[in-house]
Amino acid sequence: MKMIEAIVKPFKLDEVKDALLEIGIQGMTVTEVKGFGRQKGHKETYRGQEYTIEFVPKVKIEVAVQDSQVQRVLDTITRTAKTGSIGDGKIFVRDLAMAVRIRTGETGDTAL
Amino acid sequence: MKMIEAIVKPFKLDEVKDALLEIGIQGMTVTEVKGFGRQKGHKETYRGQEYTIEFVPKVKIEVAVQDSQVQRVLDTITRTAKTGSIGDGKIFVRDLAMAVRIRTGETGDTAL
Amino acid sequence: MKMIEAIVKPFKLDEVKDALLEIGIQGMTVTEVKGFGRQKGHKETYRGQEYTIEFVPKVKIEVAVQDSQVQRVLDTITRTAKTGSIGDGKIFVRDLAMAVRIRTGETGDTAL
Ligand SMILES: Nc1ncnc2c1ncn2[C@@H]1O[C@H](COP(=O)(O)OP(=O)(O)OP(=O)(O)O)[C@@H](O)[C@H]1O
Ligand SMILES: Nc1ncnc2c1ncn2[C@@H]1O[C@H](COP(=O)(O)OP(=O)(O)OP(=O)(O)O)[C@@H](O)[C@H]1O
Ligand SMILES: Nc1ncnc2c1ncn2[C@@H]1O[C@H](COP(=O)(O)OP(=O)(O)OP(=O)(O)O)[C@@H](O)[C@H]1O
Ligand SMILES: [Mg+2]
Ligand SMILES: [Mg+2]
Ligand SMILES: [Mg+2]
Repeated sequence: MKMIEAIVKPFKLDEVKDALLEIGIQGMTVTEVKGFGRQKGHKETYRGQEYTIEFVPKVKIEVAVQDSQVQRVLDTITRTAKTGSIGDGKIFVRDLAMAVRIRTGETGDTAL
Repeated sequence: MKMIEAIVKPFKLDEVKDALLEIGIQGMTVTEVKGFGRQKGHKETYRGQEYTIEFVPKVKIEVAVQDSQVQRVLDTITRTAKTGSIGDGKIFVRDLAMAVRIRTGETGDTAL
Repeated sequence: MKMIEAIVKPFKLDEVKDALLEIGIQGMTVTEVKGFGRQKGHKETYRGQEYTIEFVPKVKIEVAVQDSQVQRVLDTITRTAKTGSIGDGKIFVRDLAMAVRIRTGETGDTAL
């Protein structure tokens, strides 16, 4: 199992979510964050407005998936989150040692 | 060391926290998040109110523990976060390569 | 690649950020969280004000780096986030299996 964590532009959340639902993703968790990349947040254009502040608002989307789904999720997020301008975001993938679905007590892949 | 990450119903936070303190947990970090599982957030009942929106408010509880404590923490969270209704949440476990306690500089298990 | 996750006092964010930029860090993500450590949040002094509540506001700083940079980032965060009083925070390090820079499609170390 892997946790895929994508930090994307907030206005892209719905488009990414819909695309992930279309490929069969069962759940996700979203956190409001702020950050910067190589341009240090300077002059990043966000929804048509120019920011000169250093931290730019982003959303973090977390999706826990079976190993076999990782590549498809990465492709889907990359395709839908991309605008071609700076600040489009990053995706990080990390191993999951275990998962539990609280209501049923299921563990492992079937818990996702 | 492991990081245990539980996404639970917000009104369960205090009950889970108290149960974790009772089994000797030394610290935790809480983040407000929103998400959905298999029902896509539709018709999930939360504090007696019905949500038709897609993202439902949740809290993420993160607890870093020694390997020997993992099973007890999982059992405690599962027991206290469970209502029996949909949306009770998920627990994810991931490896921790290192931990540092900033004030003392301690590292490893004693830093937790 | 590693993800370094530091939970620090909110008023230390700018100092930690500036120190990380000075050692060449290219990006970071910040989340507002709340938590407690060994003192259970009791009597923790924060910006001169005494909190008796159990959860104390903190910020989580996440920095994805190449393995060779981990020790320098740990040293920099520890040095700048430390006040010497309780509640200075924790740093957790976890493995990253993969990273993608969305705009360019780059993966691995060059994506960070
Ligand atoms: N090394 C990093 N560690 C942690 N988070 C990062 C890192 N780099 C970027 N991020 C997060 O991703 C967000 C988007 O980064 P961004 O897309 O600007 O990266 P970039 O490398 O500057 O690419 P681009 O040149 O396309 O802007 C940042 O606001 C930050 O939240
Ligand atoms: N695959 C997943 N990846 C990331 N987060 C998830 C995933 N599945 C669920 N979550 C998070 O856990 C929360 C609770 O999920 P939920 O308990 O509804 O899961 P479920 O599989 O639908 O189980 P149930 O049938 O009991 O509702 C979601 O709101 C979301 O934040
Ligand atoms: N075991 C843990 N798991 C998850 N988060 C933790 C853990 N311990 C501490 N934290 C997070 O780090 C923050 C700061 O912790 P804190 O510095 O008070 O740790 P401590 O062990 O009590 O050290 P000190 O004695 O210096 O206060 C907490 O508010 C919480 O968000
Ligand atoms: Mg950038
Ligand atoms: Mg559900
Ligand atoms: Mg403390």
